[in-house]
Amino acid sequence: MPVFTKELEFETHGKGTYEISHEVEKLVSLSAIRSGTVTVFVKHTSASLVLMENADPSARHDLQAFFDRLVPEDTHYFTHTYEGADDMPSHIRVALTRSSEVIPINEYRMMLGTWQGIFLFEHRSAPHSRRIVVTVMGDS
Amino acid sequence: MPVFTKELEFETHGKGTYEISHEVEKLVSLSAIRSGTVTVFVKHTSASLVLMENADPSARHDLQAFFDRLVPEDTHYFTHTYEGADDMPSHIRVALTRSSEVIPINEYRMMLGTWQGIFLFEHRSAPHSRRIVVTVMGDS
Amino acid sequence: MPVFTKELEFETHGKGTYEISHEVEKLVSLSAIRSGTVTVFVKHTSASLVLMENADPSARHDLQAFFDRLVPEDTHYFTHTYEGADDMPSHIRVALTRSSEVIPINEYRMMLGTWQGIFLFEHRSAPHSRRIVVTVMGDS
Repeated sequence: MPVFTKELEFETHGKGTYEISHEVEKLVSLSAIRSGTVTVFVKHTSASLVLMENADPSARHDLQAFFDRLVPEDTHYFTHTYEGADDMPSHIRVALTRSSEVIPINEYRMMLGTWQGIFLFEHRSAPHSRRIVVTVMGDS
Repeated sequence: MPVFTKELEFETHGKGTYEISHEVEKLVSLSAIRSGTVTVFVKHTSASLVLMENADPSARHDLQAFFDRLVPEDTHYFTHTYEGADDMPSHIRVALTRSSEVIPINEYRMMLGTWQGIFLFEHRSAPHSRRIVVTVMGDS
Repeated sequence: MPVFTKELEFETHGKGTYEISHEVEKLVSLSAIRSGTVTVFVKHTSASLVLMENADPSARHDLQAFFDRLVPEDTHYFTHTYEGADDMPSHIRVALTRSSEVIPINEYRMMLGTWQGIFLFEHRSAPHSRRIVVTVMGDS
């Protein structure tokens, strides 16, 4: 069975969502796998993945605002704070979202819905290099 | 390697959970794949998936009540509201649950636990048609 | 295509996170699958999975404290309580985290990040036996 694996690196500049749909789509196309699945995996515990509406940026703005309030940086009982106030909230936000997304492939393309985009969700304030593994498996 | 892909459509009539275990099981059986995985994927950003207790409906009622309070429709700072008060909460509830579920297969059957059911989690109040992709991969 | 499936059992003794990375890694190695994915699946609706920082236990302690407050056991509107005060919170905590994790494999090893560990997240107070299915698929 054909398996196509590639590791990508993305630079983030602060908390928020970064669309990576096009980079994943390019690898799906390059894999020459006709039907199957693509697994997108983030190799970090302070950044995660979400599938979100990619038409109107206000949806991602509100998502960020919600998570800032759900897991506040000044939570008094957090003890895991040696990397700063955004350290522990980042791990919790990862647990609440996803470390991997699995998307079906048909006729060499991801079967995403019309408004679905794949986003890297950065939870740290400082710039980071984030490594993402894309694995395409199936039938060629 | 055998890959079996099928797109299903479900009609929802308001917010809540809709069990789709039987429809997925039927496709797993039809695929004639003996061992591997089935990926269930929802092609929307305002409906999601959860594996939940399927014996007592009160568990899903409480789940719904919890999400109604965790992401209230009248949240004052939401700006993404042109499709109504349930627009932005629906996207956040998707981010907090799942867009895909991956379930192992053995001897032509899903290896679900005794009380585990697969549920489509509808987050919009109006009736919707929801498209779900089922991909079975493995060894026949 | 090679598919390797194995069911594991873990004993838990109260709410919290239990690392299972080594047990999964051992099965990946045993599978002799060179590249592909491993799917870890928990067959329960009151225990779940998370990928978390595995260096400093304080991160998991704070994670537990956060979930205890986000889904309190004394929530007045819960009706699904016949198995005790931790019954309904356990289902909601499963919905908020993951029932499966999919991790890429390269050169016979999981491509986890440096600080990423796989944790069984137990949501019940009493001791439980938890069944986890590990499915390795790919190219040998």
